[in-house]
Amino acid sequence: MLDEIKNILAEECRVDANRALVVGVSGGPDSLCLLDILARLGFSLVVVHLDHGLRAESIDEARCVATSAEALGIPFEHKRVDTRAYAAQNNLSIEEAARILRYRFLFETADHYEAQAVATGHTADDQVETVLMHLLRGAGLAGLRGMAFYSLPNAWSEKIPLVRPLLGIWRDEIDAHLETRDLRPAQDPTNLDTRFFRNRLRHELIPILEGYNSGVKDHLWRMARLLSDDYAVLAQMTEDAWQRTVHNEGEEFLSFDAPGLLGYPPAIQRQLIRRAILELRPDLRDIDYASIERARHFLASPSASRQVDLIGGLRLTMHGQRLYLAGWEVELPNEGADFWPGLSQSQMVALPIPGNVYLSGGWLLSTQRASVDTVTFPRALDNKDPYQAWIDADQLPASLQVRRRQPGDRFQPLGMGGHSIKLSDFMINIRLPAKARTEWPLVVAGEQIVWLPGLRLAHPFRLNQGSRRVIHLSLAKI
Amino acid sequence: MLDEIKNILAEECRVDANRALVVGVSGGPDSLCLLDILARLGFSLVVVHLDHGLRAESIDEARCVATSAEALGIPFEHKRVDTRAYAAQNNLSIEEAARILRYRFLFETADHYEAQAVATGHTADDQVETVLMHLLRGAGLAGLRGMAFYSLPNAWSEKIPLVRPLLGIWRDEIDAHLETRDLRPAQDPTNLDTRFFRNRLRHELIPILEGYNSGVKDHLWRMARLLSDDYAVLAQMTEDAWQRTVHNEGEEFLSFDAPGLLGYPPAIQRQLIRRAILELRPDLRDIDYASIERARHFLASPSASRQVDLIGGLRLTMHGQRLYLAGWEVELPNEGADFWPGLSQSQMVALPIPGNVYLSGGWLLSTQRASVDTVTFPRALDNKDPYQAWIDADQLPASLQVRRRQPGDRFQPLGMGGHSIKLSDFMINIRLPAKARTEWPLVVAGEQIVWLPGLRLAHPFRLNQGSRRVIHLSLAKI
Repeated sequence: MLDEIKNILAEECRVDANRALVVGVSGGPDSLCLLDILARLGFSLVVVHLDHGLRAESIDEARCVATSAEALGIPFEHKRVDTRAYAAQNNLSIEEAARILRYRFLFETADHYEAQAVATGHTADDQVETVLMHLLRGAGLAGLRGMAFYSLPNAWSEKIPLVRPLLGIWRDEIDAHLETRDLRPAQDPTNLDTRFFRNRLRHELIPILEGYNSGVKDHLWRMARLLSDDYAVLAQMTEDAWQRTVHNEGEEFLSFDAPGLLGYPPAIQRQLIRRAILELRPDLRDIDYASIERARHFLASPSASRQVDLIGGLRLTMHGQRLYLAGWEVELPNEGADFWPGLSQSQMVALPIPGNVYLSGGWLLSTQRASVDTVTFPRALDNKDPYQAWIDADQLPASLQVRRRQPGDRFQPLGMGGHSIKLSDFMINIRLPAKARTEWPLVVAGEQIVWLPGLRLAHPFRLNQGSRRVIHLSLAKI
Repeated sequence: MLDEIKNILAEECRVDANRALVVGVSGGPDSLCLLDILARLGFSLVVVHLDHGLRAESIDEARCVATSAEALGIPFEHKRVDTRAYAAQNNLSIEEAARILRYRFLFETADHYEAQAVATGHTADDQVETVLMHLLRGAGLAGLRGMAFYSLPNAWSEKIPLVRPLLGIWRDEIDAHLETRDLRPAQDPTNLDTRFFRNRLRHELIPILEGYNSGVKDHLWRMARLLSDDYAVLAQMTEDAWQRTVHNEGEEFLSFDAPGLLGYPPAIQRQLIRRAILELRPDLRDIDYASIERARHFLASPSASRQVDLIGGLRLTMHGQRLYLAGWEVELPNEGADFWPGLSQSQMVALPIPGNVYLSGGWLLSTQRASVDTVTFPRALDNKDPYQAWIDADQLPASLQVRRRQPGDRFQPLGMGGHSIKLSDFMINIRLPAKARTEWPLVVAGEQIVWLPGLRLAHPFRLNQGSRRVIHLSLAKI
């Protein structure tokens, strides 16, 4: 086993025997075995132990680890924390809180000692349990690949890798090693408590699965290994695609080139969207399938709505050919001005029928009389395409004109039952950037707003089954 | 459900309501539901039923399906086969034999009717069971993605797709549909027989898994969907890589550009090797992980040996920068002559020390006296690199020369304890093509073969701890 782990340390974990390595030691079998092996291989070590303060025996365990480290002449760092209090303060489960406190301490210590890596004692059994947990709770490739021998950046550091030298070693082998070496690990009684999900997997489900196929643990371990390599290919493609499709990345928003994003296959689109969400919300642990698919659906047919809520208070909006991801409250930059149909002058412009008005950003607003036949009628009634509107000419109080917005403008958006709201509120709600709000062209008739081209028709002018005279308005990029 | 399936047929299954579609109907709930829905959606159908001849009731079931088809005015094709005899003849399990006979008949009929596709009644539950089966038995992405709504080419046809319109529909929904429509399916009693692996999953394991997470079926279904998209990206990359790295493809062999292949990430290398094996052995159903990894290992360090056995009687050999996959018995083509270190003349050539001999294919053979220090000594003793040899000058019976092989040449390959074999046997065993066997340069001293450059050192001239005068020979591409 020593030789096997020596190879793994060099080839998989990429660690160097001559540079300091922080090793997390709980005192249980796995970490004790890891400590023993690393010490025998001559690594320059720092032993780190976190006493989670959850059980009375934990003080003795810390002392025990200290004694082991001292016997080997290895620096020992430890700390006692109040995991329960931390969990309560941060609304976390005890297990989650313990995990965060432990890794934080490990990486703080590694930083302090300028260590090359943090090593933990995760085993092949831990890997299989992790993969099963992901399987049962729902996961994609990122979860099914399990843990890695080497990970950088990991959740805890961008610079110091987390390595798991025992990831290919089964618990049986570890127990045998400890016996040979006459080492006595502490046994954490909570490892037997089947109220914990992981323990139920270990003690109940895996033996059941072995009844279906005795090699299932090997199969799942190998599956994770293969999927991890598959994931690496997708991750590389995602990195390339990210460089090509992310147009702008601010502190609080991110914009994609929408046609570029759409050109990638679904699997890469999902990775890009997931990464974008994590850039803005790095603490999100579970990004659900539904959010990603909502984003993809919006991307594929943004005209059906102007925005979509994702997760973590983020929403997507589309302006021209830019897809923006930002928090609800975030004011988007004006970078996209070229993509909007801006009205360059602040004066009123007549809109003849038929006729055209040229807008900035290369957009054209057009009108024409229309006879709505049986084929186009359902579509006209629907008004689902914000770039076109069919209006009932008999409802117009005056001839059509185009202007920018004015203070006090109100609007009855289609789909709100004729309810009138402030135009500025509507524009803010749909997340138009400030400059776009100012310059956006409004089609008006007298005092009334008829259509916000590219955004929404006004309720009073919608077509109905009795409409006889119809005007077709359209906005197009030329 | 009708609308949902209508969408799936158009978007996922890519079928056209106006062109003939063969539908496989066993008479059980799933296929009966599929038939009903396709008929109601106005598809032009051909009902196909295979009576496997395994149970007495099967004749009634066939009659029942015939009646359903007749009632709907749909052409009906059926056949009775002796599955047990076929299984025995072909050394297959009954299930496997039934599957082969059924699909063969479906696709024959589709071909006869010039149908656009074959549709089967696989459900969402079938998908989950398939994925679990792969998980338990060990699988990579290709297995974990499960079945597809649309597949072409599939195992049965390169031209006619296999479509599964009910793949997103759960058995509960199908039962509810049948009840609403007052349809009475045949119930196959073997579906309850837990001696069959799939039935054990269905009736025993899945309910257990639902005890761990009640949404597990949805999770596994969605996982398959996501992995299928991930796989599609890898498949596309594999296709590109195939075009770039396959150098020659014959009926019975296939050659890769080895450095090109090595340049791809492990996941793509695995796909390429798997595909190469399937090109030569299309009937292999399970290509094991170990064979693929043996191939990758050989590719990464071919110098350790000249060939490696894979699976299905195939082996890999490396000649120059070409990696050949071929059956044991296959004579490789001479296409790679440029890549071998051929000796252009048939006369003997002196090999001075130090000195060089230029070989065809751009290779250079060099010699020099060497003092083997403590760093290089282990490597020299090892003789693991076939492109270099360190020999004990005191063992040489005469000065070094280079020549082509002659009838009667014998050779004592290193690693065979001094055993002498015919040189031609050695060359055939390591799968050198005929032309290469003729032209390969031999380093000789008097009557004895000292070194086959790039292949193997001769036993009598190996270095040992007592060697004092050392000659270093090397072969390099210039």
